[in-house]
Amino acid sequence: MSLSNLQSRDLKHLWHPCAQMKDYETFPPMEIVSAKGSLLHTANDGPLIDIISSWWCKSLGHGHDEVQQAVRDQMEKFEHVILANTSNELIVNLCEKLISLNPGYNKVFFADSGSDGVEVAVKMSLQYQQQNGQEQRKKFMSLQNAYHGETILTLALGDCGLYSAPYAALMPEIKKILDIPYVSGKVEDLPFEDFSSLLEPLEEYADELAGIVIEPVLQGAGGMLFYHPSFIKALRDWTSARGIHLIADEILTGMGRLGKVRACEFAGVLPDFSVFSKSMTAGFTPMSCVLTTDEIYNGFYDDYETGRGFMHSNTYTGNAISAAAAVAALEFYEREQVFARVAKDSVYMHELFEDVAAETGALLNVRSCGFVVAADLDMSLAGLNKKRCGYELYKKAVRKGLLLRPLGNTVYFLPPLNIERDLLEKSADIMKELIFEELRS
Amino acid sequence: MSLSNLQSRDLKHLWHPCAQMKDYETFPPMEIVSAKGSLLHTANDGPLIDIISSWWCKSLGHGHDEVQQAVRDQMEKFEHVILANTSNELIVNLCEKLISLNPGYNKVFFADSGSDGVEVAVKMSLQYQQQNGQEQRKKFMSLQNAYHGETILTLALGDCGLYSAPYAALMPEIKKILDIPYVSGKVEDLPFEDFSSLLEPLEEYADELAGIVIEPVLQGAGGMLFYHPSFIKALRDWTSARGIHLIADEILTGMGRLGKVRACEFAGVLPDFSVFSKSMTAGFTPMSCVLTTDEIYNGFYDDYETGRGFMHSNTYTGNAISAAAAVAALEFYEREQVFARVAKDSVYMHELFEDVAAETGALLNVRSCGFVVAADLDMSLAGLNKKRCGYELYKKAVRKGLLLRPLGNTVYFLPPLNIERDLLEKSADIMKELIFEELRS
Repeated sequence: MSLSNLQSRDLKHLWHPCAQMKDYETFPPMEIVSAKGSLLHTANDGPLIDIISSWWCKSLGHGHDEVQQAVRDQMEKFEHVILANTSNELIVNLCEKLISLNPGYNKVFFADSGSDGVEVAVKMSLQYQQQNGQEQRKKFMSLQNAYHGETILTLALGDCGLYSAPYAALMPEIKKILDIPYVSGKVEDLPFEDFSSLLEPLEEYADELAGIVIEPVLQGAGGMLFYHPSFIKALRDWTSARGIHLIADEILTGMGRLGKVRACEFAGVLPDFSVFSKSMTAGFTPMSCVLTTDEIYNGFYDDYETGRGFMHSNTYTGNAISAAAAVAALEFYEREQVFARVAKDSVYMHELFEDVAAETGALLNVRSCGFVVAADLDMSLAGLNKKRCGYELYKKAVRKGLLLRPLGNTVYFLPPLNIERDLLEKSADIMKELIFEELRS
Repeated sequence: MSLSNLQSRDLKHLWHPCAQMKDYETFPPMEIVSAKGSLLHTANDGPLIDIISSWWCKSLGHGHDEVQQAVRDQMEKFEHVILANTSNELIVNLCEKLISLNPGYNKVFFADSGSDGVEVAVKMSLQYQQQNGQEQRKKFMSLQNAYHGETILTLALGDCGLYSAPYAALMPEIKKILDIPYVSGKVEDLPFEDFSSLLEPLEEYADELAGIVIEPVLQGAGGMLFYHPSFIKALRDWTSARGIHLIADEILTGMGRLGKVRACEFAGVLPDFSVFSKSMTAGFTPMSCVLTTDEIYNGFYDDYETGRGFMHSNTYTGNAISAAAAVAALEFYEREQVFARVAKDSVYMHELFEDVAAETGALLNVRSCGFVVAADLDMSLAGLNKKRCGYELYKKAVRKGLLLRPLGNTVYFLPPLNIERDLLEKSADIMKELIFEELRS
């Protein structure tokens, strides 16, 4: 395979994320020269539709003018100042916006990556239990098929064997809740159901649990699996009654991705902790935050000498470049009523997927909520029934101008919240064409 | 205490890092309105000398023109694009610079926060051992007084009880290497010593160890403790002979902080992994990277189906805003010979501390390497012999215009690498004045 100069230089030194690098020799990296809106512009081929929002974070697409301008303006003041014992108008403004968007919460703690955010929430939960008369509460549970990040703790909270198996020796044991009520179709349309009986198997752990960690409504890396929001209600009722924390990892789902500020809103539920990242900064730079209640905060509030403070820090806690992007993104979401538009356009995106499913007969289990729609390739069909079918589809899709990046054999769209309808249609057309080609192959 | 409007708003919602928030009621956060060079400008008081580089990361001070311009220019192209299966001139350029600065390494893996970077190195080490015939190598060791971050794994690698005690239930057991040869004085002046006998107690773990993780030469959060560089040579010889990895956390020490690219250079040692962050982006936005060898990389290189790939990802792996800052910072370091100047100015900074020690008689164990100098307050002296003496000094220092932030009872300077000499002198004068006031109190 002939490589461009840039590709050769890349392969010499760059170890890419989430990869067997040998694959890069037959499928060399695409050179990106610029990006605007929902399009990535390549050096040697046409534009690519970024239908996955560059790993789910570019919620307002690339080069968003207002967010960029906010970063430029902030750099006139400062890029980053230690947040221990300092404050500034920007970070306070961000806190106020986050709290105002999330009634019931009153405190904001900032971290860097999404994984860091989940670690913060789990640490807060455990420490709270330890120093508030519940020393026996030291364990956590999470959901089957969960994904919460790639640090050792968050891998242990997750249930993606591929990512975690080699590191078992370092991972704490985190039991998984099974029998999740997965659903197909449009999640927003589901009527309330009582899932409390599904939680009966948890009873044996009730006395030792500090908290339960969930991705609400949508499990992303686990396979773009949606479950019934009422299940979150059952979890909240069960945990509240027993003094167990509920921790929502809203890194993927929050800030408009599902058409709401928090996915837990579909269940009318306020967890003890909610973690945001990705869409919070519109995918500019890493920042995560944990929102929590006065009750949790007060469990740490005491004289210094008691040792009850929360001593976590990330170097870049409250980073001003990220905070500027976040404030601009949240203001844009609000002013342009982006979340409401997502809720509406999501019906349209769902229909596009249903159409591809109907026309090709090759997609099973079409499901969506907000601006995430997914379906499974019917692997029983000739043409699809092959190893790494999703990966083969991916390589062909980019040649047609679509960054369709299946998870295993699950195809999905997770586009910028402000993507143009014609790009959605074009994406669906490309996917359809590809599937037909595979079926004929 | 009367609070400004901004302070009241801050205390309502913002949970600050590394704090007992009750302390903020008597010592409310200082409002920062802008920052330039080594100065933070406050709303209600004079400027503050950022003598700790805003938690050790602002290596070129605030508002550095070239680095800012690089970020602005990059935003004209894109802020962030998924790095899986893509490449771009910027990130390849950064890789080439990192490799060229670090002969012996050939591969670069990017992560977000410093903790993420350490997690990546440890995961790589463990996975390498597991899939290259050393399945029994599942344990890690680290050093007494270590600090490697605040995720659960990195807390376990660390040895700072204050930060980790409440989370013991989730932490893997990581044994600590004791009898570190700590030193006083100027580290650069130390002659070679043979410390191999210090490692004899490790022999019993030799067969089960995957790797040993160290902060080379300087242990930061553990108390600004310096140890003899020859100890790293002993560790490298011992680990190499046994097929155990050496992992250097150069987050604080690397990229010029100690006057070298890597602190391990003082020992003439190439670890299997070196982790960089802080000074790499000149403290603009979170980015870390792990440098490693072809040998390690080849232990993952295989057909996809073997499952030997390294599947780690951070959402923002290779983030372009951070990468632009990093390239600009590294170019500035090189063109202006910043590291060589650090090595020279560090002698001057050390002398300033020695002078304060001599004049006040209140500082013990003055020690330094590169642009980090530290000393311990003599707690036996009347006036200093009180609870939280360091914290009391901190509160008084900021009133005099110096962001002196002692670690326990250890005072230190860790300024931007390009700080002006007169600000160093002023900092030393303020510290001296403060200590005299305490001694008289």
